[in-house]
Amino acid sequence: MRIEEFLDALASGAPVPGGGGASALGGALGSALGQMVANLTVGKKKYACWEGEIRELLGQLGRLQRRFLELAREDEEVFAPLAEAYRLPASKEEERAFKEQVMEKCLLDASLVPLEVMRAGLETLDILKVLEEKGSVMAVSDVGVGAQLARASVAGAAMNVRINTRSMKDRGKAEELNRKADEMLKRGMEQADAVYERILLRLS
Amino acid sequence: MRIEEFLDALASGAPVPGGGGASALGGALGSALGQMVANLTVGKKKYACWEGEIRELLGQLGRLQRRFLELAREDEEVFAPLAEAYRLPASKEEERAFKEQVMEKCLLDASLVPLEVMRAGLETLDILKVLEEKGSVMAVSDVGVGAQLARASVAGAAMNVRINTRSMKDRGKAEELNRKADEMLKRGMEQADAVYERILLRLS
Repeated sequence: MRIEEFLDALASGAPVPGGGGASALGGALGSALGQMVANLTVGKKKYACWEGEIRELLGQLGRLQRRFLELAREDEEVFAPLAEAYRLPASKEEERAFKEQVMEKCLLDASLVPLEVMRAGLETLDILKVLEEKGSVMAVSDVGVGAQLARASVAGAAMNVRINTRSMKDRGKAEELNRKADEMLKRGMEQADAVYERILLRLS
Repeated sequence: MRIEEFLDALASGAPVPGGGGASALGGALGSALGQMVANLTVGKKKYACWEGEIRELLGQLGRLQRRFLELAREDEEVFAPLAEAYRLPASKEEERAFKEQVMEKCLLDASLVPLEVMRAGLETLDILKVLEEKGSVMAVSDVGVGAQLARASVAGAAMNVRINTRSMKDRGKAEELNRKADEMLKRGMEQADAVYERILLRLS
Protein backbone atom coordinates (compact mmCIF):
# COMPACT_ATOMS: atom_id res chain seq x y z
CA MET A 1 0.00 0.00 0.00
CA ARG A 2 1.16 3.54 -0.74
CA ILE A 3 2.03 5.72 2.27
CA GLU A 4 -0.62 8.35 1.47
CA GLU A 5 -3.26 5.64 1.00
CA PHE A 6 -2.41 4.06 4.35
CA LEU A 7 -2.51 7.46 6.11
CA ASP A 8 -5.88 8.31 4.55
CA ALA A 9 -7.29 4.89 5.49
CA LEU A 10 -5.97 5.39 9.03
CA ALA A 11 -7.48 8.90 9.18
CA SER A 12 -10.92 7.64 8.09
CA GLY A 13 -13.56 6.31 10.44
CA ALA A 14 -13.18 2.80 8.96
CA PRO A 15 -12.55 0.09 11.60
CA VAL A 16 -9.13 -0.79 10.16
CA PRO A 17 -6.34 0.23 10.04
CA GLY A 18 -6.28 1.74 13.54
CA GLY A 19 -3.96 2.38 16.45
CA GLY A 20 -2.67 -1.20 16.38
CA GLY A 21 -1.45 -0.95 12.80
CA ALA A 22 0.01 2.52 13.42
CA SER A 23 2.00 1.23 16.42
CA ALA A 24 3.37 -1.64 14.35
CA LEU A 25 4.34 0.75 11.55
CA GLY A 26 6.17 2.94 14.08
CA GLY A 27 8.15 -0.15 15.07
CA ALA A 28 8.90 -0.92 11.42
CA LEU A 29 10.29 2.61 10.99
CA GLY A 30 12.47 2.13 14.10
CA SER A 31 13.87 -1.19 12.92
CA ALA A 32 14.51 0.27 9.43
CA LEU A 33 16.51 3.13 10.98
CA GLY A 34 18.54 0.58 12.94
CA GLN A 35 19.35 -1.19 9.68
CA MET A 36 20.40 2.09 8.12
CA VAL A 37 22.87 2.65 10.97
CA ALA A 38 24.15 -0.94 10.67
CA ASN A 39 24.53 -0.51 6.88
CA LEU A 40 26.58 2.66 7.45
CA THR A 41 28.78 0.75 9.92
CA VAL A 42 29.63 -2.51 8.13
CA GLY A 43 32.58 -2.48 5.78
CA LYS A 44 34.21 0.49 7.58
CA LYS A 45 37.75 -0.08 8.84
CA LYS A 46 37.02 1.86 12.04
CA TYR A 47 34.35 -0.67 13.07
CA ALA A 48 35.97 -3.82 11.66
CA CYS A 49 36.43 -5.27 15.17
CA TRP A 50 32.66 -5.86 15.54
CA GLU A 51 31.77 -6.32 11.85
CA GLY A 52 30.38 -9.82 12.52
CA GLU A 53 28.13 -8.68 15.35
CA ILE A 54 26.73 -5.73 13.36
CA ARG A 55 26.01 -8.01 10.37
CA GLU A 56 24.11 -10.34 12.70
CA LEU A 57 22.07 -7.42 14.10
CA LEU A 58 21.36 -6.20 10.57
CA GLY A 59 19.71 -9.55 9.80
CA GLN A 60 17.71 -9.48 13.04
CA LEU A 61 16.45 -5.95 12.34
CA GLY A 62 15.36 -6.99 8.84
CA ARG A 63 13.34 -9.82 10.34
CA LEU A 64 11.85 -7.42 12.91
CA GLN A 65 10.82 -4.98 10.16
CA ARG A 66 8.98 -7.78 8.34
CA ARG A 67 7.48 -8.98 11.63
CA PHE A 68 6.07 -5.50 12.35
CA LEU A 69 4.39 -5.40 8.93
CA GLU A 70 2.99 -8.90 9.49
CA LEU A 71 1.64 -7.79 12.88
CA ALA A 72 0.01 -4.71 11.29
CA ARG A 73 -1.86 -7.11 8.98
CA GLU A 74 -2.71 -9.48 11.85
CA ASP A 75 -4.08 -6.55 13.83
CA GLU A 76 -6.55 -5.87 11.01
CA GLU A 77 -7.46 -9.58 10.87
CA VAL A 78 -8.29 -9.83 14.57
CA PHE A 79 -10.13 -6.51 14.69
CA ALA A 80 -12.68 -7.28 11.96
CA PRO A 81 -14.38 -10.20 13.83
CA LEU A 82 -14.29 -8.18 17.08
CA ALA A 83 -16.12 -5.26 15.42
CA GLU A 84 -18.68 -7.80 14.15
CA ALA A 85 -19.05 -9.44 17.56
CA TYR A 86 -19.92 -6.05 19.12
CA ARG A 87 -22.90 -5.91 16.75
CA LEU A 88 -24.31 -9.37 17.69
CA PRO A 89 -27.86 -9.29 19.18
CA ALA A 90 -28.14 -9.63 22.96
CA SER A 91 -31.81 -9.22 23.78
CA LYS A 92 -32.47 -12.88 24.73
CA GLU A 93 -30.58 -14.85 27.36
CA GLU A 94 -29.10 -17.40 24.91
CA GLU A 95 -28.08 -14.57 22.53
CA ARG A 96 -26.27 -12.85 25.39
CA ALA A 97 -24.43 -16.06 26.33
CA PHE A 98 -23.37 -16.66 22.72
CA LYS A 99 -22.29 -13.02 22.23
CA GLU A 100 -20.24 -13.11 25.43
CA GLN A 101 -18.46 -16.28 24.33
CA VAL A 102 -17.63 -14.87 20.87
CA MET A 103 -16.57 -11.52 22.34
CA GLU A 104 -14.27 -13.19 24.86
CA LYS A 105 -12.42 -15.09 22.13
CA CYS A 106 -12.16 -11.98 19.89
CA LEU A 107 -10.93 -9.76 22.75
CA LEU A 108 -8.24 -12.30 23.64
CA ASP A 109 -7.03 -12.46 20.02
CA ALA A 110 -7.07 -8.66 19.79
CA SER A 111 -4.95 -8.43 22.98
CA LEU A 112 -2.33 -10.96 21.87
CA VAL A 113 -1.34 -9.13 18.68
CA PRO A 114 -0.34 -5.83 20.39
CA LEU A 115 1.56 -7.87 23.01
CA GLU A 116 3.60 -9.26 20.09
CA VAL A 117 4.14 -5.71 18.79
CA MET A 118 5.48 -4.77 22.24
CA ARG A 119 7.80 -7.79 22.20
CA ALA A 120 9.16 -6.84 18.76
CA GLY A 121 9.55 -3.23 19.94
CA LEU A 122 11.65 -4.36 22.90
CA GLU A 123 13.84 -6.53 20.67
CA THR A 124 14.38 -3.53 18.39
CA LEU A 125 15.33 -1.36 21.38
CA ASP A 126 17.85 -3.98 22.59
CA ILE A 127 19.56 -3.85 19.20
CA LEU A 128 19.46 -0.05 19.03
CA LYS A 129 21.28 0.02 22.38
CA VAL A 130 24.14 -1.99 20.85
CA LEU A 131 24.16 0.27 17.78
CA GLU A 132 24.36 3.31 20.07
CA GLU A 133 27.66 1.90 21.35
CA LYS A 134 29.09 0.19 18.27
CA GLY A 135 27.37 1.80 15.28
CA SER A 136 28.87 4.53 13.08
CA VAL A 137 29.10 7.78 15.05
CA MET A 138 28.04 9.56 11.84
CA ALA A 139 24.57 8.04 12.26
CA VAL A 140 24.15 8.24 16.04
CA SER A 141 21.22 10.68 15.74
CA ASP A 142 19.39 8.05 13.66
CA VAL A 143 19.77 5.56 16.53
CA GLY A 144 18.04 8.14 18.73
CA VAL A 145 15.19 8.63 16.24
CA GLY A 146 14.85 4.85 15.90
CA ALA A 147 14.65 4.51 19.68
CA GLN A 148 11.82 7.06 19.81
CA LEU A 149 9.84 5.27 17.10
CA ALA A 150 10.38 1.86 18.71
CA ARG A 151 9.30 3.41 22.03
CA ALA A 152 6.10 4.64 20.34
CA SER A 153 5.43 1.10 19.07
CA VAL A 154 5.75 -0.34 22.59
CA ALA A 155 3.74 2.39 24.34
CA GLY A 156 1.15 2.57 21.55
CA ALA A 157 0.58 -1.18 21.55
CA ALA A 158 0.18 -1.14 25.36
CA MET A 159 -2.93 1.01 24.80
CA ASN A 160 -4.39 -1.67 22.53
CA VAL A 161 -3.73 -4.43 25.04
CA ARG A 162 -5.57 -2.38 27.70
CA ILE A 163 -8.57 -1.41 25.55
CA ASN A 164 -9.19 -5.09 24.80
CA THR A 165 -8.45 -6.73 28.16
CA ARG A 166 -10.74 -4.28 30.00
CA SER A 167 -13.86 -5.85 28.41
CA MET A 168 -12.79 -9.46 29.01
CA LYS A 169 -14.92 -11.46 31.46
CA ASP A 170 -12.04 -13.73 32.46
CA ARG A 171 -10.38 -11.22 34.79
CA GLY A 172 -7.61 -13.66 35.72
CA LYS A 173 -6.52 -13.89 32.09
CA ALA A 174 -7.02 -10.15 31.59
CA GLU A 175 -4.83 -9.28 34.57
CA GLU A 176 -2.16 -11.73 33.41
CA LEU A 177 -2.01 -9.97 30.02
CA ASN A 178 -2.06 -6.53 31.67
CA ARG A 179 0.86 -7.49 33.89
CA LYS A 180 2.86 -8.62 30.86
CA ALA A 181 2.03 -5.37 29.06
CA ASP A 182 2.88 -3.22 32.10
CA GLU A 183 6.21 -4.94 32.53
CA MET A 184 7.13 -4.55 28.85
CA LEU A 185 5.92 -0.93 28.81
CA LYS A 186 8.13 -0.02 31.78
CA ARG A 187 11.15 -1.79 30.30
CA GLY A 188 10.65 -0.31 26.83
CA MET A 189 10.28 3.26 28.08
CA GLU A 190 13.32 2.99 30.35
CA GLN A 191 15.46 1.47 27.61
CA ALA A 192 14.38 3.99 24.96
CA ASP A 193 14.74 6.99 27.28
CA ALA A 194 18.22 5.89 28.42
CA VAL A 195 19.46 5.46 24.83
CA TYR A 196 17.88 8.76 23.77
CA GLU A 197 19.22 10.76 26.74
CA ARG A 198 22.74 9.46 26.24
CA ILE A 199 22.71 10.38 22.55
CA LEU A 200 21.25 13.83 23.29
CA LEU A 201 24.14 14.37 25.73
CA ARG A 202 26.69 13.27 23.12
CA LEU A 203 25.23 15.77 20.65
CA SER A 204 25.23 18.64 23.17
CA MET B 1 5.80 5.62 -2.49
CA ARG B 2 4.76 2.21 -1.19
CA ILE B 3 5.29 1.56 2.52
CA GLU B 4 7.67 -1.40 1.97
CA GLU B 5 9.68 0.64 -0.56
CA PHE B 6 10.04 3.53 1.88
CA LEU B 7 11.10 1.19 4.69
CA ASP B 8 13.68 -0.53 2.49
CA ALA B 9 15.04 2.84 1.28
CA LEU B 10 15.22 3.98 4.93
CA ALA B 11 16.97 0.74 5.95
CA SER B 12 19.59 1.12 3.21
CA GLY B 13 22.82 3.07 3.60
CA ALA B 14 21.59 5.66 1.05
CA PRO B 15 21.79 9.26 2.35
CA VAL B 16 18.01 9.77 2.09
CA PRO B 17 15.50 9.04 3.47
CA GLY B 18 16.89 9.13 7.01
CA GLY B 19 15.91 9.98 10.57
CA GLY B 20 14.39 13.30 9.51
CA GLY B 21 11.93 11.68 7.11
CA ALA B 22 11.12 8.93 9.63
CA SER B 23 10.33 11.53 12.33
CA ALA B 24 8.05 13.38 9.93
CA LEU B 25 6.29 10.13 9.00
CA GLY B 26 5.75 9.37 12.70
CA GLY B 27 4.03 12.74 12.97
CA ALA B 28 1.89 11.99 9.92
CA LEU B 29 0.74 8.74 11.59
CA GLY B 30 -0.11 10.66 14.78
CA SER B 31 -2.15 13.28 12.93
CA ALA B 32 -3.93 10.56 10.91
CA LEU B 33 -4.93 8.80 14.15
CA GLY B 34 -6.28 12.10 15.48
CA GLN B 35 -8.41 12.41 12.35
CA MET B 36 -9.69 8.87 12.84
CA VAL B 37 -10.84 9.78 16.36
CA ALA B 38 -12.44 13.00 15.10
CA ASN B 39 -14.19 11.08 12.31
CA LEU B 40 -15.58 8.62 14.88
CA THR B 41 -16.83 11.57 16.97
CA VAL B 42 -18.58 13.85 14.45
CA GLY B 43 -22.21 13.09 13.65
CA LYS B 44 -22.75 11.30 17.00
CA LYS B 45 -25.58 12.66 19.15
CA LYS B 46 -23.51 12.17 22.33
CA TYR B 47 -20.89 14.65 21.09
CA ALA B 48 -23.20 17.05 19.24
CA CYS B 49 -22.39 19.88 21.68
CA TRP B 50 -18.84 20.23 20.31
CA GLU B 51 -19.47 19.03 16.74
CA GLY B 52 -18.26 22.35 15.30
CA GLU B 53 -15.00 22.32 17.26
CA ILE B 54 -14.22 18.70 16.31
CA ARG B 55 -14.88 19.44 12.62
CA GLU B 56 -12.46 22.37 12.84
CA LEU B 57 -9.78 20.12 14.44
CA LEU B 58 -10.37 17.49 11.77
CA GLY B 59 -9.45 20.05 9.10
CA GLN B 60 -6.36 21.16 11.04
CA LEU B 61 -5.15 17.57 11.45
CA GLY B 62 -5.59 16.94 7.72
CA ARG B 63 -3.40 19.96 7.01
CA LEU B 64 -0.82 18.75 9.55
CA GLN B 65 -0.72 15.29 7.92
CA ARG B 66 0.04 16.90 4.55
CA ARG B 67 2.56 19.25 6.18
CA PHE B 68 4.44 16.27 7.70
CA LEU B 69 4.70 14.60 4.27
CA GLU B 70 5.89 17.88 2.76
CA LEU B 71 8.53 18.17 5.50
CA ALA B 72 9.69 14.59 4.85
CA ARG B 73 10.32 15.61 1.22
CA GLU B 74 11.99 18.88 2.27
CA ASP B 75 14.26 16.94 4.62
CA GLU B 76 15.52 14.93 1.64
CA GLU B 77 15.98 18.15 -0.39
CA VAL B 78 18.14 19.84 2.25
CA PHE B 79 20.17 16.71 3.04
CA ALA B 80 21.40 16.04 -0.51
CA PRO B 81 23.42 19.32 -0.82
CA LEU B 82 24.75 18.84 2.73
CA ALA B 83 26.04 15.36 1.87
CA GLU B 84 27.72 16.89 -1.21
CA ALA B 85 29.22 19.76 0.78
CA TYR B 86 30.90 17.27 3.15
CA ARG B 87 32.75 15.88 0.11
CA LEU B 88 34.13 19.26 -1.09
CA PRO B 89 37.94 19.49 -1.18
CA ALA B 90 39.64 21.34 1.69
CA SER B 91 43.35 20.95 1.14
CA LYS B 92 44.01 24.61 0.15
CA GLU B 93 43.13 27.67 2.22
CA GLU B 94 40.61 29.09 -0.31
CA GLU B 95 38.99 25.63 -0.70
CA ARG B 96 38.57 25.42 3.06
CA ALA B 97 36.97 28.89 3.22
CA PHE B 98 34.55 28.02 0.39
CA LYS B 99 33.67 24.63 1.91
CA GLU B 100 33.02 26.23 5.29
CA GLN B 101 30.69 28.81 3.74
CA VAL B 102 28.72 26.17 1.79
CA MET B 103 28.58 23.84 4.82
CA GLU B 104 27.29 26.62 7.07
CA LYS B 105 24.38 27.37 4.72
CA CYS B 106 23.55 23.65 4.28
CA LEU B 107 23.69 22.95 8.03
CA LEU B 108 21.35 25.86 8.73
CA ASP B 109 18.82 24.60 6.14
CA ALA B 110 19.10 21.07 7.52
CA SER B 111 18.38 22.38 11.05
CA LEU B 112 15.34 24.44 10.09
CA VAL B 113 13.36 21.54 8.58
CA PRO B 114 13.38 19.36 11.74
CA LEU B 115 12.45 22.46 13.79
CA GLU B 116 9.35 22.68 11.59
CA VAL B 117 8.65 18.97 12.20
CA MET B 118 8.81 19.68 15.95
CA ARG B 119 6.41 22.60 15.54
CA ALA B 120 3.92 20.43 13.60
CA GLY B 121 4.32 17.67 16.23
CA LEU B 122 3.43 20.14 19.01
CA GLU B 123 0.36 21.35 17.09
CA THR B 124 -0.73 17.73 16.67
CA LEU B 125 -0.28 17.10 20.41
CA ASP B 126 -2.35 20.19 21.27
CA ILE B 127 -5.22 18.82 19.18
CA LEU B 128 -4.87 15.29 20.59
CA LYS B 129 -5.25 16.78 24.08
CA VAL B 130 -8.64 18.21 23.07
CA LEU B 131 -9.63 14.88 21.49
CA GLU B 132 -8.69 13.11 24.71
CA GLU B 133 -11.35 15.22 26.45
CA LYS B 134 -14.00 15.60 23.75
CA GLY B 135 -13.42 12.74 21.30
CA SER B 136 -15.40 9.48 21.19
CA VAL B 137 -14.56 7.37 24.27
CA MET B 138 -14.67 4.33 21.94
CA ALA B 139 -11.44 5.59 20.34
CA VAL B 140 -9.60 6.95 23.37
CA SER B 141 -6.80 4.37 23.02
CA ASP B 142 -6.14 5.71 19.52
CA VAL B 143 -5.62 9.20 20.98
CA GLY B 144 -2.96 7.63 23.22
CA VAL B 145 -1.24 5.90 20.29
CA GLY B 146 -1.39 9.14 18.30
CA ALA B 147 0.21 11.03 21.20
CA GLN B 148 3.09 8.52 21.29
CA LEU B 149 3.72 8.83 17.56
CA ALA B 150 3.53 12.65 17.67
CA ARG B 151 5.93 12.52 20.64
CA ALA B 152 8.35 10.44 18.54
CA SER B 153 8.17 13.05 15.76
CA VAL B 154 9.09 15.86 18.20
CA ALA B 155 11.84 13.93 20.01
CA GLY B 156 13.17 12.37 16.80
CA ALA B 157 13.36 15.72 15.01
CA ALA B 158 15.20 17.24 18.02
CA MET B 159 18.05 14.79 17.27
CA ASN B 160 18.29 16.13 13.72
CA VAL B 161 18.40 19.74 14.89
CA ARG B 162 21.29 18.82 17.24
CA ILE B 163 23.30 16.78 14.74
CA ASN B 164 23.28 19.73 12.32
CA THR B 165 23.74 22.69 14.70
CA ARG B 166 26.75 21.04 16.37
CA SER B 167 28.89 21.51 13.22
CA MET B 168 27.81 25.13 12.61
CA LYS B 169 30.56 27.77 12.98
CA ASP B 170 28.08 30.48 13.95
CA ARG B 171 27.66 29.34 17.56
CA GLY B 172 25.26 32.18 18.37
CA LYS B 173 22.83 30.98 15.69
CA ALA B 174 23.43 27.34 16.64
CA GLU B 175 22.62 28.00 20.31
CA GLU B 176 19.51 29.96 19.35
CA LEU B 177 18.23 26.97 17.33
CA ASN B 178 19.21 24.53 20.11
CA ARG B 179 17.28 26.60 22.67
CA LYS B 180 14.19 26.54 20.44
CA ALA B 181 14.54 22.77 20.00
CA ASP B 182 15.10 22.17 23.74
CA GLU B 183 12.04 24.20 24.65
CA MET B 184 9.83 22.37 22.12
CA LEU B 185 11.25 18.99 23.14
CA LYS B 186 10.43 19.60 26.80
CA ARG B 187 6.93 20.86 26.01
CA GLY B 188 6.19 18.01 23.56
CA MET B 189 7.31 15.28 25.94
CA GLU B 190 5.36 16.75 28.86
CA GLN B 191 2.22 17.16 26.78
CA ALA B 192 2.43 13.66 25.23
CA ASP B 193 3.24 11.97 28.54
CA ALA B 194 0.38 13.74 30.34
CA VAL B 195 -2.17 12.72 27.68
CA TYR B 196 -0.84 9.15 27.59
CA GLU B 197 -0.77 8.72 31.38
CA ARG B 198 -4.32 9.98 31.78
CA ILE B 199 -5.61 7.60 29.09
CA LEU B 200 -3.68 4.67 30.59
CA LEU B 201 -5.34 5.45 33.92
CA ARG B 202 -8.80 5.58 32.30
CA LEU B 203 -8.18 2.15 30.74
CA SER B 204 -6.97 0.59 34.02
